[in-house]
Amino acid sequence: MAARTLQGFMELLPEEQIVMEQMKAVIAHTYRLFGFAPLDTPVLELAEVLLSKSGGETEKQIYEFKKGDTDLALRFDLTVPLAKYVALYNNNLSFPFKRYQIGKVYRGERPQKGRFREFYQCDIDIIDRDELNIVYDAEVLAVIYTVFSRLELPAFKIYINNRRLMSGFLESLEIADKTTDVLRLVDKIKKIPEEAFLGELNEMGLPADKNRRLLDFIKIKGSNREIIAKLEDFKIDNLNWQNGLAELKTVIAQAQNLGLPAEAIQIDLSITRGLDYYTGTVYETFFDDYPQFGSVCSGGRYDNLCGTFTDKKFPGVGISIGLTRLFDQLRANGLLKIAGPTPNRALIITQSPDFAEPALRLVGQLRQHDIAADVMLRDCKFKKKMEYANKIKIPYLIIIGEDEVANHTYTLKNMATGEQTSVDLAALVSAIK
Amino acid sequence: MAARTLQGFMELLPEEQIVMEQMKAVIAHTYRLFGFAPLDTPVLELAEVLLSKSGGETEKQIYEFKKGDTDLALRFDLTVPLAKYVALYNNNLSFPFKRYQIGKVYRGERPQKGRFREFYQCDIDIIDRDELNIVYDAEVLAVIYTVFSRLELPAFKIYINNRRLMSGFLESLEIADKTTDVLRLVDKIKKIPEEAFLGELNEMGLPADKNRRLLDFIKIKGSNREIIAKLEDFKIDNLNWQNGLAELKTVIAQAQNLGLPAEAIQIDLSITRGLDYYTGTVYETFFDDYPQFGSVCSGGRYDNLCGTFTDKKFPGVGISIGLTRLFDQLRANGLLKIAGPTPNRALIITQSPDFAEPALRLVGQLRQHDIAADVMLRDCKFKKKMEYANKIKIPYLIIIGEDEVANHTYTLKNMATGEQTSVDLAALVSAIK
Repeated sequence: MAARTLQGFMELLPEEQIVMEQMKAVIAHTYRLFGFAPLDTPVLELAEVLLSKSGGETEKQIYEFKKGDTDLALRFDLTVPLAKYVALYNNNLSFPFKRYQIGKVYRGERPQKGRFREFYQCDIDIIDRDELNIVYDAEVLAVIYTVFSRLELPAFKIYINNRRLMSGFLESLEIADKTTDVLRLVDKIKKIPEEAFLGELNEMGLPADKNRRLLDFIKIKGSNREIIAKLEDFKIDNLNWQNGLAELKTVIAQAQNLGLPAEAIQIDLSITRGLDYYTGTVYETFFDDYPQFGSVCSGGRYDNLCGTFTDKKFPGVGISIGLTRLFDQLRANGLLKIAGPTPNRALIITQSPDFAEPALRLVGQLRQHDIAADVMLRDCKFKKKMEYANKIKIPYLIIIGEDEVANHTYTLKNMATGEQTSVDLAALVSAIK
Repeated sequence: MAARTLQGFMELLPEEQIVMEQMKAVIAHTYRLFGFAPLDTPVLELAEVLLSKSGGETEKQIYEFKKGDTDLALRFDLTVPLAKYVALYNNNLSFPFKRYQIGKVYRGERPQKGRFREFYQCDIDIIDRDELNIVYDAEVLAVIYTVFSRLELPAFKIYINNRRLMSGFLESLEIADKTTDVLRLVDKIKKIPEEAFLGELNEMGLPADKNRRLLDFIKIKGSNREIIAKLEDFKIDNLNWQNGLAELKTVIAQAQNLGLPAEAIQIDLSITRGLDYYTGTVYETFFDDYPQFGSVCSGGRYDNLCGTFTDKKFPGVGISIGLTRLFDQLRANGLLKIAGPTPNRALIITQSPDFAEPALRLVGQLRQHDIAADVMLRDCKFKKKMEYANKIKIPYLIIIGEDEVANHTYTLKNMATGEQTSVDLAALVSAIK
């Protein structure tokens, strides 16, 4: 029987897994720092719950099966489970409800480079009853900024836009009835040539002059201040435009109050997020020097999270980091900071099996001092033990032999510098800490 | 469409989820402290890989389904995926290979109280090529002891035995051919009356005098020292008995070298673990005052992890904590230490929406000091904001109003003591930290 792992399912070696765990820890810590509470929902749900509002694409990709008489499915995102959770438990939650969730989701896509069938999403959402203050859209910007700063990844920028503003512009062009299709096409502008873009608008039955005005609009460039000035010059007077513009201005201004540097955020009128789901602010995040990674953190504002489950209205704003894909791209580009194959801070080896007892006593003492420590207990030659220490790239090696036991000392070797000293327990602990 | 969660799938409210996350963090931290590296394997595997060595019980419980032409299954433990992983990647691993894994597993059992269909297992295993030093069996004891001590749960004891010793005893009774069945029955002795136990042995065709001697043997009581003395008095001379006894003595002695108090471990000759899989040391862990919880951490030594996948021999020793069930039992018995519904350490509220800007500036500054902080941005009356602060049991409340803005100060209220002070940013940070 051959050992095999399914295609499209990531499995890492220990030295890579440690980096992945560190990234998850930084993300979770940052989310908590911003007042988000952890949530964990089942990987497996009733198929009808997960598919309650989805379209055809999702259904084709979903892992769905029967157990007895019950139709089950693996979750394909963390948003539908959140909607179910809020609908079920809202009477027991405090609003605004801020939750984070880091968990695996499943999509049975055709396996191809950079596409995973099982991958981590790291989500935050802020949900309120009936209305959610627009300032929370700025807070989400602050979370994205802080997470990516703390992950110490390449330089990045958060691109934002507002769907209400876009709708207002389409209204002003008198093509509001085509809003969904047009915004879905705008979302692709970075991937297709301008001529193809105009051609597709044409096929939708839109007149050439309006198509040109739309293209010019989404190509507006400049600093946030300059873009906002240009938008104000349009002097469009429908409600969507005015509210959308006011929201965009508030979000940018309040993000700065929250401590974000102005250059961290860039208005980009071509960002729409394909999904109908979003109604206001939308976010995407790109690395300046790795645009080919695509957006590494996206999301937006929505009017009604739980529409398929309840009549109560729950507006919200949220984002998602596709961690598995991000990790894979960082690795492929040599951008992972690999520390070493094991998380041990100190390794104890003995010059012969006779010294196992003092070695065990020492490793127990180090762990009581909260030092991650290990003792190499394999019966093998001293040379083999040294090879093992080198292979696992241990930062501190402690050697116990006849002299050490006689003198009640330990030989501590700093493997980075090669420096070797004879120390007692207290000195050992303080050297490693 | 009614929002529903599947039966047998745990879903927690935020205040409980926080405790669950804290428990997971303590377990992971302790595992790392002992030099274990993290591992993450897919939830979904090829059915033939997961079922490569299982018996009938597992197959009935497994979630198995077809996607296209492929037979898939959800993992039902973390051991088979580890066996697959070691078989696949052993050329890239350093041995002894110490890994921990905290992940969900799936068993489609009939839902009943205290049984979950999706639950967390928190596993460690130490694997070596060809031979694994017996001292690692003592190290596993040290891990169990440290995890449960750091979790600050009720008083517990780790019960150990040795399957080789048991086999040796059955050999001495000349009933070695029945070892598997007999040990599986011994495993049930705490759940059935003695008469039923003897009756079942009788049905296996064992003579009454031997049954009695076996019962007396597994009931041997005393301190570890006393039990070992009694075992030595048996003077049985087969190899299994002698090796098993030597192993048991080594494990107990080396655990004390590792710093474990003698009373943390208790030899119990009725512990066998039902599975054939185990070949030497076996562990179970019980709370002294809650024996009805059953064993909350079990495991043992095995000779060959990857037998179904490779001819190479990988002996190991490991344990598993069934975290979901443990959490459920602690909760049902009022033993969870609930801190508060959200993880926020500080909440900022304003006396009117006019003070949103200083509130946002402050929350940004607190987070830069790594203080988990939140600002209540809902447009509502001050009284409602105070109610929210009380409901989420926030430890520190910060109030910003006209006076505070005029004087460049903040009003800090310690919600535990009710004490209210007027402070500047530096004093605020040091008070909360």
